[in-house]
Amino acid sequence: MKKNAIVGQSGGPTAVINASLYGVVYEVLNREDSFGTIYGMINGIEGFLNGSCMDMKPLEMSGELEYIKTTPGSYLGSCRYKLPEDLDNSVYVRLFDKFQEMNIGYFFYIGGNDSMDTVSKLSRHAAKTGSDIKVIGIPKTIDNDLIETDHTPGFGSAAKYIASTVREIAVDASVYDNKKSVTIVEIMGRHAGWLTAASSLARKFEGDNPVLIYLPETDFNPELFLESVAKTLETTPNLVVCISEGIHDENGTFVCELAGDVGIDAFGHKMLTGSGKYLENLVKTRLGVKVRSIELNVCQRCSSAMLSATDQKEAIASGAYGVKCALDGETGKMIAFRRIHSEPYTVDYVTADVNVVCNREKAVPPDWITKAGTDVSDKFLAYAKPLIQGQVNIPFENGLPKFAYRK
Amino acid sequence: MKKNAIVGQSGGPTAVINASLYGVVYEVLNREDSFGTIYGMINGIEGFLNGSCMDMKPLEMSGELEYIKTTPGSYLGSCRYKLPEDLDNSVYVRLFDKFQEMNIGYFFYIGGNDSMDTVSKLSRHAAKTGSDIKVIGIPKTIDNDLIETDHTPGFGSAAKYIASTVREIAVDASVYDNKKSVTIVEIMGRHAGWLTAASSLARKFEGDNPVLIYLPETDFNPELFLESVAKTLETTPNLVVCISEGIHDENGTFVCELAGDVGIDAFGHKMLTGSGKYLENLVKTRLGVKVRSIELNVCQRCSSAMLSATDQKEAIASGAYGVKCALDGETGKMIAFRRIHSEPYTVDYVTADVNVVCNREKAVPPDWITKAGTDVSDKFLAYAKPLIQGQVNIPFENGLPKFAYRK
Repeated sequence: MKKNAIVGQSGGPTAVINASLYGVVYEVLNREDSFGTIYGMINGIEGFLNGSCMDMKPLEMSGELEYIKTTPGSYLGSCRYKLPEDLDNSVYVRLFDKFQEMNIGYFFYIGGNDSMDTVSKLSRHAAKTGSDIKVIGIPKTIDNDLIETDHTPGFGSAAKYIASTVREIAVDASVYDNKKSVTIVEIMGRHAGWLTAASSLARKFEGDNPVLIYLPETDFNPELFLESVAKTLETTPNLVVCISEGIHDENGTFVCELAGDVGIDAFGHKMLTGSGKYLENLVKTRLGVKVRSIELNVCQRCSSAMLSATDQKEAIASGAYGVKCALDGETGKMIAFRRIHSEPYTVDYVTADVNVVCNREKAVPPDWITKAGTDVSDKFLAYAKPLIQGQVNIPFENGLPKFAYRK
Repeated sequence: MKKNAIVGQSGGPTAVINASLYGVVYEVLNREDSFGTIYGMINGIEGFLNGSCMDMKPLEMSGELEYIKTTPGSYLGSCRYKLPEDLDNSVYVRLFDKFQEMNIGYFFYIGGNDSMDTVSKLSRHAAKTGSDIKVIGIPKTIDNDLIETDHTPGFGSAAKYIASTVREIAVDASVYDNKKSVTIVEIMGRHAGWLTAASSLARKFEGDNPVLIYLPETDFNPELFLESVAKTLETTPNLVVCISEGIHDENGTFVCELAGDVGIDAFGHKMLTGSGKYLENLVKTRLGVKVRSIELNVCQRCSSAMLSATDQKEAIASGAYGVKCALDGETGKMIAFRRIHSEPYTVDYVTADVNVVCNREKAVPPDWITKAGTDVSDKFLAYAKPLIQGQVNIPFENGLPKFAYRK
């Protein structure tokens, strides 16, 4: 008897996490010989534990699946739910009982490193109990901080959005170019500066904005920052500075912690806000120059207008490749990319051991950051450029992007 | 002897203020029988007074003019410079001497109501001194607050950006739809709520987010706001609220003034920031629910990804129509739109007396706002929908929008 598959989404969304969902669902439904149907977990493993799931097959019949491909957010809803460390916990028994009840043979989970922790635990529980369910992780994160893969679906589109938006902000900031001004753009990325580094792609010519770029990989010194800003203003009257939300001083204290309260999320991560606002006030007070701070906020991960065609294609393909790997008997694996060439850009799809991937983070290499810690090197540009190539024509209705949504 | 024309841009940029510049320049250069060349003032009238201007003709030859059409910001640079009230001031003498020196017969100024003040004064000085220079204003403002015109170039693209971005933010906010949350989106518009009202276009179905919309046209009561948020959360777990930066209490005190410092700009306007942040803290403290605030910031006026084809077409046409009117001998006029039908959408191009337009603001009509002051009516939707129609294919290079810039 053919087994069914189940797919879920977890963690923060990206512009292409639904493209990966599309890839998984489309591939399963087009392998009728191998699969029964495919279910979607509503709100990930947490919602599934509460009995929330849906049959995905009707979405293909109704044509809705095509719209999912270009819809931001997580179509199935998401969760931030950490499975117990103890693999004998009753939660696992409940989960695998449900899998058996629904005749599930394949489990696909689309997410970042916290989600790969779920994949790791489920596959280890399966191994321990002799279950033959195949558990596969499909990578996603705008942060690009997963190890064992060249890059991650979601990063390319976020990088394209950041680069184009910073380019637009720089153009906007330059309209009063007979007066000095500073614009500080705060970009997502708690511990890894990949997204902030992507702002370097915004430059139209050598020396163009953003002239100063600060990643969380190097310690941030407010006094040196003020010196650099003052010096750069002499040659760039309308200076654009890009900073990561996670910049911190040499003691590891986040700049935003100097600014006010911070909270803690479900995984124990500090919730950050306000580094840009803090520096805005610092520049205003100390340098007396016109200054504005802009937080790109969630638009970095949910803008459909700047989808990278390369990113979208890879997101779909990694979902489909996950299905193929599961059928080949792989489990406890995350789909990964191995770069063959940057020019012309070519990648291979491979699998990585999910136990190695989970709960770890990949930072921007030190030699991709300039010595002064105020810019990235050409190595980053060579790495990132292929990932933002190509535009996606999203469907419009009544003048606005048409999105899929659960009724 | 054929006279030359001169064109300038003033005030904050829009996504299509350069399309209007294109319209003026293209039309002048294509009427070789009537015009010599056309100059551009760098940084508006302020830069011109300091001797900054450029010949625009080479831009057509080099192909750069085509890229200007889809470039955000003000290609020529901008200024916020108020001419003296006293028309006998020596500044006018200097200006008109320069005009004579450069054989200027036509003056075009692209801007909002402050810029129309410049058009008014120059045309009145010309009338007073017997100068036959024709002075024409081309309207622009994302705020849509100019009187004597159905709407203003720049509004349609900003409205399209706001509607699509709020739709994306709402989709993003709904991924944890098994948990309650509030997202507050702060939208530009100091005294007029047109842009904030445009967020209503984001709804995908009746009752969809944003469920609550607050314009500066009605008084804002923080206690009633909290009541509405708490009540709406019962049926909309992931509530999106859109507010204008200019919301104020019944005494006229801006909500952001409750939050902290405010500055004053060159025209004596209060500089606003932080209404969203203030309400975020209020909701967190009083309702104890997860809450985030997002300031759309300058992206509202500089995003090229959500250009409205209708808006761009009208921006170009209003520039070209201004040239025609000047040739017909009109002066002291602003180009305006008269709407004939909303369905099918048709407009006439007319002229308005700039002395009536300048320094005044058009608010959203009271009967376009619901009684509770938490939404806009269908009248607004019927008005705004035609203005966001159509997409513009902007040129890309290396994966990013290719923009024109002054070398």
